[in-house]
Amino acid sequence: MLTVHHLGKSQSERIVWLCEELGIPYDLKIYARAPVLAPDDYRALHPIGAAPVITDSTDSGRDLVLAESAAVVDYIIATYGNGRLVLTRDDPAFADYLYWFHFANGTLQPAFMRLMISGRFSPPADHPALLLGQQRMERILGMMDRRLQDVPWLAGERFTAADIMPVFSLTTMRYFLPYDLTPYPGILGYLQRVAARPAYQRAMQKGDPGMALLLE
Amino acid sequence: MLTVHHLGKSQSERIVWLCEELGIPYDLKIYARAPVLAPDDYRALHPIGAAPVITDSTDSGRDLVLAESAAVVDYIIATYGNGRLVLTRDDPAFADYLYWFHFANGTLQPAFMRLMISGRFSPPADHPALLLGQQRMERILGMMDRRLQDVPWLAGERFTAADIMPVFSLTTMRYFLPYDLTPYPGILGYLQRVAARPAYQRAMQKGDPGMALLLE
Repeated sequence: MLTVHHLGKSQSERIVWLCEELGIPYDLKIYARAPVLAPDDYRALHPIGAAPVITDSTDSGRDLVLAESAAVVDYIIATYGNGRLVLTRDDPAFADYLYWFHFANGTLQPAFMRLMISGRFSPPADHPALLLGQQRMERILGMMDRRLQDVPWLAGERFTAADIMPVFSLTTMRYFLPYDLTPYPGILGYLQRVAARPAYQRAMQKGDPGMALLLE
Repeated sequence: MLTVHHLGKSQSERIVWLCEELGIPYDLKIYARAPVLAPDDYRALHPIGAAPVITDSTDSGRDLVLAESAAVVDYIIATYGNGRLVLTRDDPAFADYLYWFHFANGTLQPAFMRLMISGRFSPPADHPALLLGQQRMERILGMMDRRLQDVPWLAGERFTAADIMPVFSLTTMRYFLPYDLTPYPGILGYLQRVAARPAYQRAMQKGDPGMALLLE
């Protein structure tokens, strides 16, 4: 049985959403932050102690414990997805799919983490390293915005796992690093398309009931 | 024709190494840092302006420009790899492969970036955010070290793309963020196994001739 260990207000919302999009059976176990960091029983799941973590029973009888968002997404899709939500190499949008899938944790989330870490040192507003980080974030959001003014989903015409990966950074992440999306109408329109998906609605209601969704 | 645009002393060394492991034909274009950041002609290749970038001709006649290490690795393996260097879902080590492949840019490299960014604000040695970052790095390297004392390669018995992803962070990255690997004999033994691979040697000689390899 697949179990999704979901830490509230965290990147593991991606995994709950993925399971809802696929419509597969899974056991959802919710952990509250205590008060900011993950609680001890969550940290005991995996040596790194960060969300997401899943557990699953494998054919060999060994219980699997798996962390790392992109690894968990790839694993669930390969094991239970029946080819859904991914593009294969014969698809003209294959490279776009790969780019945006990996962009989420390779470029977007690190740029936000960079600003969060910078803030912990309380730098003056004109500190060169802070300004560089802000410029990088604007360049990244600008590129994403142009893409999403051209196509409905990041890989192109079809909703894929490349959409499940970055949405956390554009929404729930803003509880930890508030920033303004008003200059990015392409991204805002995209978040409305995401919010209209029944699977996204179910996932957020199950995983973070009562949490206001930062979609604007 | 596949062209690897390699920025000297950068994450794109992974892509040169991948091509050498696969033994596929590729055109290598080398760009020097000017003096630290990527030069203008490199930044013009892709909106994000970071290494790696590849260009390729596609079946549809459209020229492809692709960035983001993991996307480039997935693309090259899917297009030219004939199933080599990846594990599929029927392999008992499939989940390990996925974990370590994504760990490189999802956990390892961000932990180092966090320390690099912290350093730019010249914090006192006992700043809590700095200490947290150092503890996180030690936890991550400790986990990797234990893994590499158990198995020769990160996915287990076979060398895969999960090894090509993290080695930059353990070697060339230390030109930018010096740190000591002496406490991690498992990692040091691993780097010796990497250094013994003819494809790694060829890649580093072609991509960064004259650069001393930080393998100890």
